[in-house]
Amino acid sequence: MRLSPAAELAVRGIVVLADHYGEGPTTLKTICGVRDLPKQYLVKLFSLLAKADIVTAIRGKHGGYELSRAPKEITLLEVIEAVEGPIALNFCQHNPPKCDREDCPLRAVWTELQRTVRQRLGAVRLSQCLSKGAPSPRPRA
Amino acid sequence: MRLSPAAELAVRGIVVLADHYGEGPTTLKTICGVRDLPKQYLVKLFSLLAKADIVTAIRGKHGGYELSRAPKEITLLEVIEAVEGPIALNFCQHNPPKCDREDCPLRAVWTELQRTVRQRLGAVRLSQCLSKGAPSPRPRA
Repeated sequence: MRLSPAAELAVRGIVVLADHYGEGPTTLKTICGVRDLPKQYLVKLFSLLAKADIVTAIRGKHGGYELSRAPKEITLLEVIEAVEGPIALNFCQHNPPKCDREDCPLRAVWTELQRTVRQRLGAVRLSQCLSKGAPSPRPRA
Repeated sequence: MRLSPAAELAVRGIVVLADHYGEGPTTLKTICGVRDLPKQYLVKLFSLLAKADIVTAIRGKHGGYELSRAPKEITLLEVIEAVEGPIALNFCQHNPPKCDREDCPLRAVWTELQRTVRQRLGAVRLSQCLSKGAPSPRPRA
């Protein structure tokens, strides 16, 4: 049971944006440098995050990325599902399920666990994930 | 976020043994047939389950596999960790962690989620996962 590499990297990258919220765009080079992330892969992940309206790409000389909303308005669940799709812990939690045994008692177990995982991730906001020492997020001008 | 394919198959396979607990060894052919599982892969997984003393391999003409303990004495967590190793939801939950930022606020989030997942899986016993219509497990002679 583990987080996908895509989700792992996206979360680490977006936390850098949350740390810099209100300071204007942050370059991909900065994001990757702070968290030791692979730039090429992060471009793909951030384009998925932009598609989900979680980050905004700013073009131009002083361009980069910034959060589309305040850190307290973005949950870990949104970030994870934006890059790995809806969480499906196992075969029977896919939509449609990859197993057709509707009366299987295991399905209830996985459904309950999946609900718990989604609830927990949905309750964590980026504002709770700021690096220690990062400035408190300020609303954008 | 998802269960490894190894754990998915091991759980599906061992539930067949739980359904047949007290009836003597079940052949791999039966296990695979009931749940449409790939035989070659299941041999490897069941050797890991045997190493963890969750199943016992019985040799001979009427051989096969049986649970080493009663279904109520085996948890889903044991089965999963026997085949995929200790659950590590992400980089920082590895032992030792694959990320050295000890003060990262994300680490606390993942630690709490991992604890919840392990607790939930540790609370589900195979006796709760028996197929509907399967005979109630009888103690072995």
